[in-house]
Amino acid sequence: MNGLKEKVLTLDTMNPCVRRVEYAVRGPIVLRALELEQELRQGVKKPFTEVVRANIGDAQAMGQKPITFLRQVLALCVHPDLLNSPDFPEDARRRAERILQACGGHSLGAYSVSSGIQLIREDAARYIERRDGGIPADPNNIFLSTGASDAIVTVLKLLVAGEGPTRTGVLIPIPQYPLYSAALAELDAVQVDYYLDEERAWALDVAELRRALCQARGHCCPRALCIINPGNPTGQVQARECIEAVIRFAFEERLFLMADEVYQDNVYAEGSRFHSFKKVLMEMGPPYATQQELASFHSVSKGYMGECGFRGGYVEVVNMDPAVQQQMQKLMSVRLCPPVPGQALLHTVVSPPTPSDPSFAQFQAERQAVLAELAAKAKLTEQVFNEAPGIRCNPVQGAMYAFPRVQLPPRAVQHAQELGLAPDMFFCMRLLEETGICVVPGSGFGQREGTYHFRMTILPPMEKLRPLLETLSQFHAKFTREYS
Amino acid sequence: MNGLKEKVLTLDTMNPCVRRVEYAVRGPIVLRALELEQELRQGVKKPFTEVVRANIGDAQAMGQKPITFLRQVLALCVHPDLLNSPDFPEDARRRAERILQACGGHSLGAYSVSSGIQLIREDAARYIERRDGGIPADPNNIFLSTGASDAIVTVLKLLVAGEGPTRTGVLIPIPQYPLYSAALAELDAVQVDYYLDEERAWALDVAELRRALCQARGHCCPRALCIINPGNPTGQVQARECIEAVIRFAFEERLFLMADEVYQDNVYAEGSRFHSFKKVLMEMGPPYATQQELASFHSVSKGYMGECGFRGGYVEVVNMDPAVQQQMQKLMSVRLCPPVPGQALLHTVVSPPTPSDPSFAQFQAERQAVLAELAAKAKLTEQVFNEAPGIRCNPVQGAMYAFPRVQLPPRAVQHAQELGLAPDMFFCMRLLEETGICVVPGSGFGQREGTYHFRMTILPPMEKLRPLLETLSQFHAKFTREYS
Ligand SMILES: Cc1ncc(COP(=O)(O)O)c(C=O)c1O
Ligand SMILES: Cc1ncc(COP(=O)(O)O)c(C=O)c1O
Repeated sequence: MNGLKEKVLTLDTMNPCVRRVEYAVRGPIVLRALELEQELRQGVKKPFTEVVRANIGDAQAMGQKPITFLRQVLALCVHPDLLNSPDFPEDARRRAERILQACGGHSLGAYSVSSGIQLIREDAARYIERRDGGIPADPNNIFLSTGASDAIVTVLKLLVAGEGPTRTGVLIPIPQYPLYSAALAELDAVQVDYYLDEERAWALDVAELRRALCQARGHCCPRALCIINPGNPTGQVQARECIEAVIRFAFEERLFLMADEVYQDNVYAEGSRFHSFKKVLMEMGPPYATQQELASFHSVSKGYMGECGFRGGYVEVVNMDPAVQQQMQKLMSVRLCPPVPGQALLHTVVSPPTPSDPSFAQFQAERQAVLAELAAKAKLTEQVFNEAPGIRCNPVQGAMYAFPRVQLPPRAVQHAQELGLAPDMFFCMRLLEETGICVVPGSGFGQREGTYHFRMTILPPMEKLRPLLETLSQFHAKFTREYS
Repeated sequence: MNGLKEKVLTLDTMNPCVRRVEYAVRGPIVLRALELEQELRQGVKKPFTEVVRANIGDAQAMGQKPITFLRQVLALCVHPDLLNSPDFPEDARRRAERILQACGGHSLGAYSVSSGIQLIREDAARYIERRDGGIPADPNNIFLSTGASDAIVTVLKLLVAGEGPTRTGVLIPIPQYPLYSAALAELDAVQVDYYLDEERAWALDVAELRRALCQARGHCCPRALCIINPGNPTGQVQARECIEAVIRFAFEERLFLMADEVYQDNVYAEGSRFHSFKKVLMEMGPPYATQQELASFHSVSKGYMGECGFRGGYVEVVNMDPAVQQQMQKLMSVRLCPPVPGQALLHTVVSPPTPSDPSFAQFQAERQAVLAELAAKAKLTEQVFNEAPGIRCNPVQGAMYAFPRVQLPPRAVQHAQELGLAPDMFFCMRLLEETGICVVPGSGFGQREGTYHFRMTILPPMEKLRPLLETLSQFHAKFTREYS
């Protein structure tokens, strides 16, 4: 009989790439928020009565109601006995029947083909065509996915190759959505940072792209450029000229473009408009339109839907080598298929009710209400923060987040460092402990050395958002006094 | 302006590990089946009127009806307006309310915590305890996943490390379910084959494990051992003594055990019984029970549910280093969460109606009907194949597949090789073209050199299965004559 053995799998023996992964959106601050919620439930006294989770872009968790038509269709798909029920509008019933016809065994419970149900890919193509003013989209270039996350990781996975100085480098914005840094760490690719310009409302500057690229060329092989538009965590919406400049740059420098456009429906600021990379690329004509490789990502998690839990999404690829596209298809088939309920939900999004449908009026009204409230919350957030001394917030042109810059007194910075914490982590932890407000420190997204930020979603309901913003501003003032 | 440039991403520049991935269950034979279906729809004349997809374990695609209770609960969760409808039994309504209470914003549309909804993890733990005769299960050791596939790949990902002779090796059965070979190729780990013994009904033999391990130790570092029980594609159900011997071997040789138990409810043969690795491990006492690392996988895709499209599943880890377990949690959080509808469905599976519930009788009846029909089909399949000269089929003790061995005439083998095809691929392609029956060649799962097999699911409805088995046997006879 053997004595005590060491574990086979330990921190020392496990995959070192996985160990290097960091993921702030669900990091220590969120674990602490969970604990605080438990303590509150157990009756422990706190200076607040509830934890407000402004850390993650999860609209329905914050009380946003699902769009009725989407859920009606889905309920009918899940339980087709309801198809005879008079409680459902006729267009929802027709829609559910159409989706079920396209499913194996006419059931959501069958695997679909790995790239997604053909009908849904076709209607997604038509949706993209409408969005892009008639520029054609090919259903064969559309792959449904398990949320946008899955598709993003899949495309990154294809791109990773080489070792040492030929290792794939991928340019990502700083600040970034941390899926990118996490996936690159896991895949052992080189993260190449380009900085968005906070002074110009987080604009993307080609000169900065070039700087980042040149610096990276010494030690890796940069092969892809990621753009998040509208931006997370930064909330900017890119101007058309900027997108053109980025495309020209990518073409000249031979970079595969990855456009994360999951917030394409979330544009609020006057004068801001969403331009898809695909449309701009096509309108630029050859050689860009015919040669530049592009992958564009979308999701049912954001927009007016906020159906994060369903894990629906897709990627459209443009000018991808057909042989590589086949490899992508093969890779996706190993995991069998994206969740079919999420695919069905995506169908209602890419093919919403039209004016002649019975559900149209309600659908439109619900959709507009969600988007109008988000726009109002974006404005309010910017405004309240900018009234607070020591906080400066760029306009929230789109997406679902504010990423304000906070001044932290040198003594607070020093104190944090003594505790082994990033100064903005220290600030956010104190904020959480004293007010119950859960936001994510800027260090989780990346920021210029010596600057401090936090990311807060604009999703709390209006009646909670205003007091929350004020509490936060007051806390910052108190924190500043305390360490001055 | 630049001229024609080469693509950034080509077969030559893409991830070489992804290129090496093979995935037969959805390989060329399935693509051809899709084409044939299209041709049939377009009215092209064929020697058959429909393609029968016996290539994939997808019960509902083959006409199996979903279990009513599962879908009622899910419809209520999707569209809570229905909670007031008298059309649903009271226990389904209570259940849906319980699940929604546990969801963010009381909605399936919110992200859950990355390891899955706490309530569902807790009830999964109780389910495992009932299965294992009261041996405790800790909800903190249970991670919900996007189908079992996702959890399997996640655990493999943790295990991969090293380079050259220290690269992680993973022992997998041959024949295997090709997710394993595909994931290992993608992760650049070393696949170490151990052969199941066809002569002894695909039994697992520790001497063979030892042979494989010793041979592998020269060129990699074997660190994990995968077992599929009941077996896919081989249909064997492991005896308890065999599981004990495997555990002893893994403990002595310091291998992390991965037990793929997605077919735990699919046991048909008289005298066969499912024994979970967890239970056997715990009953063996220390040091096994206290030290041997184990991950056990389950899924809503199989069993009596067959809810593949929902992508629900979980892994239970036992004796895992807590620090590694934290790393696993972090890794899962990067993709945010498993699909929430799949989690909800899993809840109905781990916590089915009990005798006092109004839905109990119907639930039991539906469940038994599915399992009884599968048992009858398993028996029929074995029987018909074994009546055919040149085909030999081990008993289908469990799971959903037969993996019969076929004799192929030397001239057919030679002809296939001239075409650059594996001989069993050639056989299966011809079978598909002439009969519309779609099965997967044995070479996609691995088999002893010089032997030929195919995998066929036992899922077609009874009235189709018998003619299908006979057509297949007759085709084999004709094929044999043709090449003799
Ligand atoms: C910029 C960005 N991309 C991708 C995602 C992934 O979303 P999902 O996987 O839920 O579609 C998110 C989620 O917050 C995001 O903010
Ligand atoms: C042995 C085995 N493991 C795992 C899986 C994956 O199933 P899923 O990802 O649908 O849960 C399958 C599916 O056929 C299987 O046969």
